[in-house]
Amino acid sequence: MTTSSKISTFIPPVRTLMGPGPSDVHPRVLNAMARSTIGHLDPQFVALMDEMKILLQYAFKTKNELTIPVSAPGSAGMETAFVNLIEPGDTVVVCQNGVFGGRMKENVERCGATPIMVEDEWGMPVDPNKLEETLKAHPEATTVAFVHAETSTGAQSDAETLTRIAHEHGCLVIVDAVTSLGGTPIKLDEWGIDAIYSGTQKCLSCTPGLSPVSFSAAAVERIKGRKTKVQSWFLDLNLVMGYWGAGAKRAYHHTAPVNALYGLHESLVLLQEEGLENAWARHQKNHLALRAGFEAMGLSFIVPEAARLPQLNAVTIPDGVDEAAVRGRLLNDFNLEIGAGLGALAGKVWRIGLMGHASNAKNVMFCLGALDSVLTDMKAPIESGVAVAAAQGVYG
Amino acid sequence: MTTSSKISTFIPPVRTLMGPGPSDVHPRVLNAMARSTIGHLDPQFVALMDEMKILLQYAFKTKNELTIPVSAPGSAGMETAFVNLIEPGDTVVVCQNGVFGGRMKENVERCGATPIMVEDEWGMPVDPNKLEETLKAHPEATTVAFVHAETSTGAQSDAETLTRIAHEHGCLVIVDAVTSLGGTPIKLDEWGIDAIYSGTQKCLSCTPGLSPVSFSAAAVERIKGRKTKVQSWFLDLNLVMGYWGAGAKRAYHHTAPVNALYGLHESLVLLQEEGLENAWARHQKNHLALRAGFEAMGLSFIVPEAARLPQLNAVTIPDGVDEAAVRGRLLNDFNLEIGAGLGALAGKVWRIGLMGHASNAKNVMFCLGALDSVLTDMKAPIESGVAVAAAQGVYG
Repeated sequence: MTTSSKISTFIPPVRTLMGPGPSDVHPRVLNAMARSTIGHLDPQFVALMDEMKILLQYAFKTKNELTIPVSAPGSAGMETAFVNLIEPGDTVVVCQNGVFGGRMKENVERCGATPIMVEDEWGMPVDPNKLEETLKAHPEATTVAFVHAETSTGAQSDAETLTRIAHEHGCLVIVDAVTSLGGTPIKLDEWGIDAIYSGTQKCLSCTPGLSPVSFSAAAVERIKGRKTKVQSWFLDLNLVMGYWGAGAKRAYHHTAPVNALYGLHESLVLLQEEGLENAWARHQKNHLALRAGFEAMGLSFIVPEAARLPQLNAVTIPDGVDEAAVRGRLLNDFNLEIGAGLGALAGKVWRIGLMGHASNAKNVMFCLGALDSVLTDMKAPIESGVAVAAAQGVYG
Repeated sequence: MTTSSKISTFIPPVRTLMGPGPSDVHPRVLNAMARSTIGHLDPQFVALMDEMKILLQYAFKTKNELTIPVSAPGSAGMETAFVNLIEPGDTVVVCQNGVFGGRMKENVERCGATPIMVEDEWGMPVDPNKLEETLKAHPEATTVAFVHAETSTGAQSDAETLTRIAHEHGCLVIVDAVTSLGGTPIKLDEWGIDAIYSGTQKCLSCTPGLSPVSFSAAAVERIKGRKTKVQSWFLDLNLVMGYWGAGAKRAYHHTAPVNALYGLHESLVLLQEEGLENAWARHQKNHLALRAGFEAMGLSFIVPEAARLPQLNAVTIPDGVDEAAVRGRLLNDFNLEIGAGLGALAGKVWRIGLMGHASNAKNVMFCLGALDSVLTDMKAPIESGVAVAAAQGVYG
């Protein structure tokens, strides 16, 4: 490498993150990430791990002993659930109403199992009746998997009902809660969910890179009774449990991402300080304000009202507008990131996140004001100059 | 959760990390981790990814296009190499001279392949003659895997010779360089290594959590020509390449751990500023000073001199000393972490790391001084009061 090609320190711009995640990270979380690294077997770090478990149990509303952060992003949390609970030859019912149900199918296949798909339109919640019919037709199914909060569409499915139906048919349940944890109610024990995974970069106000997971006693029993070894050494919960298990004696498995865990710990302390129910209410309130602004502007939601996620708002694009150009101007002129459509919805919607620390009145008004000004400037067919006031009306 | 059980912000102690890793993190890396998060598809982040590739190519001394950080710790980097290059039914020769060769064997088995073990004593390098004999006896082998720098023993194997022998027998080579990258020479292209993985928390002065990897053209060809799908969705390089691939158009795979990547980028900028060869020389010099101190004290190395890693020093424990009590006093009285023995060497050695930013004269003298004082206080059979001066002699 010649001197002229030397690469320098990377100084990122300061964005407002209102896409599908990562979302704005709380400054206290960023500060926590920069604290001095200690060893992953240090007694002080072991104390942090114990606290982490309690904080995650609080966030998931569970007493599950096996409640930990996987040392990798949400996709690895998904894979942790599948590779530990599924064995070759199993039949798994996968509900798909967006991108992430498709990824679940991929996981099932790579476990050597057979996925049976329950398909719903993108933007709609999973239909419990279809699940029930499918389970009647497939008594051999061992597991049902569905996405609680579809990040690709902003649709929320009824996790409680889907879990009840799955249990009535003798199945364990795997739930994707990447976008729901901290933003919208999850009551893990009350609903009886067996395996759940989330991400840190959505409603927890934390940086991306870790995946909180929780497994019920029934799930742990299945894992311990497997006929075959878990195909992933890194994600094998039989081994991971030895490191995250109770007591001071921990078996080394892998080196934990220490500073990332400082960040998650701090984000969970913040959640505890605010109170889980208060966080859910805050997400709902800011969603209503954003919705008032969008509707005043003339944009509409693709998800029926009863199934809308407050933290992920998928709205239609005004006729004739170059949606990528709008996102580009928001990013370049306002340092504001909103999300594009994904998969079947690419080019058809914007996805506006109000997740975690990013779910606040300042962001709502900023986003509406910036979008209003860009669309007005581009002569889009919208009602100009009324969105922010409409949102203000909700805050009253 | 009641008010009385509230958990507060975690403030870690400031340790000196001289175990087998994590090692001391450079303050510039910690600062980088705390910078504002941007989206994983942000054009500025894409620019960071391009720089990251160049910086990692520099560190590995390679022109390999597929040179990226896996979004998870070193164990996941190991698994990335195995699940992508190995298919069910393959025969893989695994050289074992410590803990991590055993983990390779686990990986091979979980890929549905057959491991053929080449065993050497813990503390010794891998014997090239044994590898050659094994390959003659197993012409069906497709792959050879070995650990370049065994973190459990401090032994370095001759990666160039082992790779040459493997190639002569038509095998691709997988190399564990978790503890070597940045601390001791790796010449990936010159030696012809096909797949290599490392960790960020050893000689790169970075926090734990990511795994730099690099794959040769021959390795990529094998991955693209697989008969079966990679069993891990998260680690499937066919998909990961779409995100890390060349050009501005990136396919979303998983959400990258943005802030952890800021940290790795900064650690690689530091490496580039120092110069790779200078970093190797620094590790060697500090090792010689530490060695002089240990030998003056009467402690001996378990690895023959020619195979000693400068960054990981495994030394014998004086007779009659409670080794765990010594480590406890170093941690509690001096905030100094050194490592215990692992696996077959548990209770028999201490492992003292001089890795990355932690490899400096201050740490060498501090460690020798603290160990001298604790052992002297515990009336251990050592030569007291001479270790630091012996090290100073090396610095001259």
